[in-house]
Amino acid sequence: MYNVEACFSPAQYESYENSEAVVIVTDILRASSAIVTAFMNGVDKIIPVGTLNEARAMKEKGYMVAAERDGIVRDFADFGNSPYNFTSERVSGNDIVYSTTNGTHAINLASSGSQVLIGAYLNITALAEYVKDQKRDVLILCAGWKNRFNLEDTLFAGALAKLILQHASFTTICDAVIGAIDLYDLASGDMMAYIDKVAQRERLRKNGLDDVIGYCHEHDKTNIIPAFKNGYITSVNQI
Amino acid sequence: MYNVEACFSPAQYESYENSEAVVIVTDILRASSAIVTAFMNGVDKIIPVGTLNEARAMKEKGYMVAAERDGIVRDFADFGNSPYNFTSERVSGNDIVYSTTNGTHAINLASSGSQVLIGAYLNITALAEYVKDQKRDVLILCAGWKNRFNLEDTLFAGALAKLILQHASFTTICDAVIGAIDLYDLASGDMMAYIDKVAQRERLRKNGLDDVIGYCHEHDKTNIIPAFKNGYITSVNQI
Repeated sequence: MYNVEACFSPAQYESYENSEAVVIVTDILRASSAIVTAFMNGVDKIIPVGTLNEARAMKEKGYMVAAERDGIVRDFADFGNSPYNFTSERVSGNDIVYSTTNGTHAINLASSGSQVLIGAYLNITALAEYVKDQKRDVLILCAGWKNRFNLEDTLFAGALAKLILQHASFTTICDAVIGAIDLYDLASGDMMAYIDKVAQRERLRKNGLDDVIGYCHEHDKTNIIPAFKNGYITSVNQI
Repeated sequence: MYNVEACFSPAQYESYENSEAVVIVTDILRASSAIVTAFMNGVDKIIPVGTLNEARAMKEKGYMVAAERDGIVRDFADFGNSPYNFTSERVSGNDIVYSTTNGTHAINLASSGSQVLIGAYLNITALAEYVKDQKRDVLILCAGWKNRFNLEDTLFAGALAKLILQHASFTTICDAVIGAIDLYDLASGDMMAYIDKVAQRERLRKNGLDDVIGYCHEHDKTNIIPAFKNGYITSVNQI
């Protein structure tokens, strides 16, 4: 039997770290939804970088750069974190450097796992199916908000864990998974009403960036699974 | 308005730290329930220590010592972490040195707050009333399990936040509080059935230590509020 676990914050990662596990990183509002969208629109590679200085240096080297902090696009960047920015016109066939508040930090952290995948509702069923076939433990790492617990990533962790646990070879003894599934079951009847009460909803609204919330909760728009390896993200079929 | 926040793991504490806040530490199974019980049974002071070496040194100085790791009493200690160990025969009028897996670490961490209180279901209503009168932000710090999220502390955070938020001068924009209240509302109809699925239930059962679970979920057995200050815990009326 393989274990399914969830970690609600990068600050807790050390306590869940499992070098044998497939680690699925999620940052639903908005980094992981944006990354999946970029691959749907034909991006070749995404290079996640942790700091704005690294992002700026890559811009100077000629890369197209997506970079924001607290939802605000940085002046040197080509665009920010909204999935709507990653249009085919911009990204198709290109490499993109990407730095976000929480998402890229989590992705880099997760690289101690056997494989690092990027998860969103947009690819949730494909992801669950792929993970099932790996015959390994699974760790869902929520990017959270500045190391705090956030609800939107937790709900996704619950949704994904639930799909994976439908397969008989997976089990869980992880309180975070149990709690996340219970919260997802509570919220999923009217997800937009539930999301209306989360803190990130308000942060995005203040900056006029909340137009993507519905899109970021649409299920199964693609079978593409982005994976992080050797410093960059490609789709899982490419690596 | 005063904010109510919850932190699900000591590993995340830095992201919630608020020197203006009253911090309430909880470790429902079993440290905070045991500490409240010790005061119900007349303990004078409890001295929480982080390491077993410190606990052993205090034993050698002649203190009565309660110390366990992973639910197992250490050989040099007088007794372990079960609330049932803190009988009036043992503790009345005495000082006790106390070291536990998660609880004492969280208590020491919380001392950056304006006041550190120990919370359990046993004193939950008295605690909510006391906190209301402090006219300060409130941070509920869950001891968790080795920096992991745990459900039993989260449910208590939800129960306590709900009581505090009944007062008009308190509000929350904290996802952890919202999630904890939703989980508490889901669980509270049949708390023992819900607790049956948490990981700590199984850990205690393996060691034959699960006899206290019902007791640790009894509400309002006392009005005593233990508080940590200057290195030791006394009841709030004493400090």
